[in-house]
Amino acid sequence: MTTFTSQNALFAPIFADEEIDALFSTEAMVGSFTQFEIALTGALAEVGRVDSDLAKKALAGMEKFVPDIPAIADRIVADGLPVPGYVAQLKAHLGEELASVVHVGTTSQDLIDSSFAISFARATDVLDQRLSAVLASLSDLARDYGGNSMMGRTRMQAALPISVAHRITTWQQPLIQLHADLKTQRSDIAQLQFGGPVGDCAAFGDDAATVGAAIAKRMGLVASDTSWHTDRHGLIAFGNLLSQISGALGKFGQDACLMAQQGIDEIKLKGGGKSSAMPHKQNPIPAELLVTLARYNATQIGGLHQALVHEQERSGVMWTLEWMILPEMVRVTAKSLLVAQDLLARIERIGTP
Amino acid sequence: MTTFTSQNALFAPIFADEEIDALFSTEAMVGSFTQFEIALTGALAEVGRVDSDLAKKALAGMEKFVPDIPAIADRIVADGLPVPGYVAQLKAHLGEELASVVHVGTTSQDLIDSSFAISFARATDVLDQRLSAVLASLSDLARDYGGNSMMGRTRMQAALPISVAHRITTWQQPLIQLHADLKTQRSDIAQLQFGGPVGDCAAFGDDAATVGAAIAKRMGLVASDTSWHTDRHGLIAFGNLLSQISGALGKFGQDACLMAQQGIDEIKLKGGGKSSAMPHKQNPIPAELLVTLARYNATQIGGLHQALVHEQERSGVMWTLEWMILPEMVRVTAKSLLVAQDLLARIERIGTP
Amino acid sequence: MTTFTSQNALFAPIFADEEIDALFSTEAMVGSFTQFEIALTGALAEVGRVDSDLAKKALAGMEKFVPDIPAIADRIVADGLPVPGYVAQLKAHLGEELASVVHVGTTSQDLIDSSFAISFARATDVLDQRLSAVLASLSDLARDYGGNSMMGRTRMQAALPISVAHRITTWQQPLIQLHADLKTQRSDIAQLQFGGPVGDCAAFGDDAATVGAAIAKRMGLVASDTSWHTDRHGLIAFGNLLSQISGALGKFGQDACLMAQQGIDEIKLKGGGKSSAMPHKQNPIPAELLVTLARYNATQIGGLHQALVHEQERSGVMWTLEWMILPEMVRVTAKSLLVAQDLLARIERIGTP
Amino acid sequence: MTTFTSQNALFAPIFADEEIDALFSTEAMVGSFTQFEIALTGALAEVGRVDSDLAKKALAGMEKFVPDIPAIADRIVADGLPVPGYVAQLKAHLGEELASVVHVGTTSQDLIDSSFAISFARATDVLDQRLSAVLASLSDLARDYGGNSMMGRTRMQAALPISVAHRITTWQQPLIQLHADLKTQRSDIAQLQFGGPVGDCAAFGDDAATVGAAIAKRMGLVASDTSWHTDRHGLIAFGNLLSQISGALGKFGQDACLMAQQGIDEIKLKGGGKSSAMPHKQNPIPAELLVTLARYNATQIGGLHQALVHEQERSGVMWTLEWMILPEMVRVTAKSLLVAQDLLARIERIGTP
Repeated sequence: MTTFTSQNALFAPIFADEEIDALFSTEAMVGSFTQFEIALTGALAEVGRVDSDLAKKALAGMEKFVPDIPAIADRIVADGLPVPGYVAQLKAHLGEELASVVHVGTTSQDLIDSSFAISFARATDVLDQRLSAVLASLSDLARDYGGNSMMGRTRMQAALPISVAHRITTWQQPLIQLHADLKTQRSDIAQLQFGGPVGDCAAFGDDAATVGAAIAKRMGLVASDTSWHTDRHGLIAFGNLLSQISGALGKFGQDACLMAQQGIDEIKLKGGGKSSAMPHKQNPIPAELLVTLARYNATQIGGLHQALVHEQERSGVMWTLEWMILPEMVRVTAKSLLVAQDLLARIERIGTP
Repeated sequence: MTTFTSQNALFAPIFADEEIDALFSTEAMVGSFTQFEIALTGALAEVGRVDSDLAKKALAGMEKFVPDIPAIADRIVADGLPVPGYVAQLKAHLGEELASVVHVGTTSQDLIDSSFAISFARATDVLDQRLSAVLASLSDLARDYGGNSMMGRTRMQAALPISVAHRITTWQQPLIQLHADLKTQRSDIAQLQFGGPVGDCAAFGDDAATVGAAIAKRMGLVASDTSWHTDRHGLIAFGNLLSQISGALGKFGQDACLMAQQGIDEIKLKGGGKSSAMPHKQNPIPAELLVTLARYNATQIGGLHQALVHEQERSGVMWTLEWMILPEMVRVTAKSLLVAQDLLARIERIGTP
Repeated sequence: MTTFTSQNALFAPIFADEEIDALFSTEAMVGSFTQFEIALTGALAEVGRVDSDLAKKALAGMEKFVPDIPAIADRIVADGLPVPGYVAQLKAHLGEELASVVHVGTTSQDLIDSSFAISFARATDVLDQRLSAVLASLSDLARDYGGNSMMGRTRMQAALPISVAHRITTWQQPLIQLHADLKTQRSDIAQLQFGGPVGDCAAFGDDAATVGAAIAKRMGLVASDTSWHTDRHGLIAFGNLLSQISGALGKFGQDACLMAQQGIDEIKLKGGGKSSAMPHKQNPIPAELLVTLARYNATQIGGLHQALVHEQERSGVMWTLEWMILPEMVRVTAKSLLVAQDLLARIERIGTP
Repeated sequence: MTTFTSQNALFAPIFADEEIDALFSTEAMVGSFTQFEIALTGALAEVGRVDSDLAKKALAGMEKFVPDIPAIADRIVADGLPVPGYVAQLKAHLGEELASVVHVGTTSQDLIDSSFAISFARATDVLDQRLSAVLASLSDLARDYGGNSMMGRTRMQAALPISVAHRITTWQQPLIQLHADLKTQRSDIAQLQFGGPVGDCAAFGDDAATVGAAIAKRMGLVASDTSWHTDRHGLIAFGNLLSQISGALGKFGQDACLMAQQGIDEIKLKGGGKSSAMPHKQNPIPAELLVTLARYNATQIGGLHQALVHEQERSGVMWTLEWMILPEMVRVTAKSLLVAQDLLARIERIGTP
């Protein structure tokens, strides 16, 4: 789900997740930028910090703004981010007078973090639905095969017989908890970022909280008391949850791999992967992939925690590292739920009656 | 805080934390083992699953049991864990008849995980107190220097002046949230492990929940509905929190390092580390150490997430990996709070009036 | 350089590296697949293990083979890899008779690993050139400013004055060594994979070594004595080197960030990144990006080492993890050399005369 | 092999390695410190940079110096390292006059890094011997059971029968290469550190190289052209090698775990670990432990690569991180070779005749 695995057509299908890609697309992000600027100018007009007539006209102009992405792209390398180019274009589109009521007192980080908040919150909804589906399939599985018996194994050795229901419970239990956590955390993920150049909302004086609340409301986000420019714990907690979800599915995948071994035969899967050399062979592809995705996220989570050392009022180093890691973790996690669902659909039997 | 940094007297003082060491000592663990066995036999007698007279005598015997640690040690390598040796010794101490009502239906993992639960819960209390102390010192700092002004810096460049209060807020804010999280998570950390050989409490039939609740009560732990032999998410969430605490302190340390640079001079520290070559030099030792500890934990958290792929009914591989990583993360986090407190005590000025 | 950072046009320019993308493109990979099959059939004909007339015709047919990528894509998810679909198409293209002398005794892993070997070897050449260019620029820098003086800093504190030449030497020294290592390692990276279904070349009997050598020669790869299906140390060593290169550049970037601070002013950069809020500000974007890329690779290397636990004759889990991590590390490393070159071109002064 | 796993007597035996502990002991380190100071003063006298009579007396005094470790310990926290306290004590022991020819032009890092170089080089010798032993046992294994047959397995599925010799080859092959690498790398590991306060040997003028060579010779170390104060690539390369060794053994361990499963039964082990609940069960403890140790090192290697971003002339942050990680990786690797040897000794059969 990295550049290679998303761009090379020979490997991309294994990792593809179009629904998630759409949430992080150029269109989605630039749409969120404009949504932020509209919400800001509207909120400032509301509290009377910008002229309401100008604001009205600027809002109308912004609604019609279609950014020229390639022209923005030309400045991105030098600026290290797309916002200066985007704002310059937006202001040029509005003209000097209207531009004076746009992007007032704010900064690139407010736009980018808030846009990610929207993408992450929507991703949370996708994860929520997919987790529900996986849990429903696991319930069906327990209903169909829970009464069967299989060998319980500890330290890779046969221990005592268990019910298949018990094994399935060990797959369900963490996912049920993580599903609940996901719902709880959504409001932490969907937080507006609003702090201005150095995070102290200095340009807004006593109106800062009011303006922040108004922007959040217009954007469907949650207002926070202060900016979280350097306080990335909400993002890290989201990353933790993502890796825990893929990790829980990795345990399921690992168990399925072990159960599918000839000689063990505790699970029967249909439609396994074919070998180019041995066409008779049925490889438990989705089960293996679940372990891969779990180990990928377990790797990334370390990088995300490194990014907590976010110096001063804004660390370009750490912020950029988040961009490289967190959206990918979202995609891997979301994909792992699809793969789990695929694996569940292939199960034809667990244990013995 | 690894073998080398705890055993080599030339380095150990940098990383020492005796209060935490005591929580994970041989005595603490073996005490918890005995506490578990006493609670189990007591609970089983309560529900009538073992003879109450025998139980009474066994409980009296267990109260007086002093294990021979070196003798246990002899078996640990072969068994991969200390419980079989411990239980054999305990049973020999009680004699065959009383031994029949001891360690009934349980397994090594129940003892070890529950013992860790006690150690981790106590560690949580230590972290709680230390976090309170650090937060109090940060409040004092804000009171003393919050009114001062300093340069706000983004992407390592001077941006706009900020109040020192704003900078201190960015240190306080995540710690306040993590402090609250710590209190919330304590009950997840302090969970009894109770599942028997393959985690299904099969030996206890309908009494499993009652017995589990009784054991938990006697041990001062929280009962869970099911065993969490393979569901390590509670431990991983604890690890996440630990790394987030040290990460938040790492940001504080990194800021202090940058503020202490000659030419920047936004912080004045007393009692800095001496150089063997340049005795005039004042090194910001605790500030640097906070960053080191943060990066150490950010490294370890990845290993902990790898351990989520916990196959079948018990993975010796992953369980052992937790032993190597999690207690160390506790120690590093607890130490980082002491180091932060030390750094705070050395601050003689921030910003300029 | 992950899916998001390569697909979202608002962020992709920061991370773009078209030269590297071309090496890992669909066309490059599928071209390598065909190159492998041609080399194999040719080699088998050479030793007389397939009929030479059939082989001749099959080779002619393969030269003209244009795979239908979307049709291959349809099978990739089920198979877990693209080779079965590719081979089926290739054989259909040749017809049953000629197909009998194609893909004989080999397996998907032989094709995929050998194709990666070609891509990695070519990437090594790109890295080699870029390293040469960066080292040349560093030499120029030493020539231009090496005679200047600056403050040497240890533990973030001013220590003693040093020559700028000394600081530049600390940037050059590791890169010179890593450049030499890269040249040495190229032959390990450019290794043919050749083992057949279970890695023992069983289908080729005594001719295995001869056939392997012939394939390697035709593909411009290096023959190895045995297959390295499960021996991933060559790849891991390549990953180590990649992370060490980006790490060495990360040190340079971190130094440049610290030198560029107002109040320190040991470096003067032109053309810094603009802020959307503070147009006067000059951000050291490439210097920061070097640190980000170093920390990204330092994160990934852990995942690659996890993949060493490659069970039995082929681990789908670990192999797939490599695909997710290693090409991305190549791209990050190659990009970091471009970014370093960019940073070097922006330096207008170091230290004081 | 962390604080907990080395201090808690209930777990320490699993991870114990006294031979390695001795190499990193207080005595070993302080002995190396004194060895460095003696070599330095001797070398300086040789080139006439200190008075030879004073040097002679100082050398005699240093030979008899027995440092008071607890007194050194008192200063370590404030200084961040033990050298200033050690040097102060050494100078006091010699008296003011002789002290003037001791610790001239050098710095803490020269002593500490050079001492670690000695410890690491000695550890390399231990690893070399243990690798030889493991390779010899693997040869014996191939001799005894190589002619047997077993099922080759790919993607966790039975593929085609292989010879046991082929499977054993996949264990031997990487270890043979890593054994060779270890011998090659020894001279990079055994490098003297010699740079003075800011790494430029400024105090020694034109004599720097001569003095460095003389110190190296006296200490049994290798002289390098320049100091490597901030160039940590040699250490990182050592870490890479360590993790690759434990990773290669992890593959062996994982295979043994899978082969030992009932239903697969491709390996027969004697003396397995006992369960406290199921005394009949034979757990493949050393095989599992090999995987744990591999995954531990694969986790640590990421932290080591993070430490490459070693800012300015000395990063206290990164240096301290190395102390926490690298000696532990040495210990884990060395232990994994002992565990592998133990596992090999327990093998009673592989495959079927």
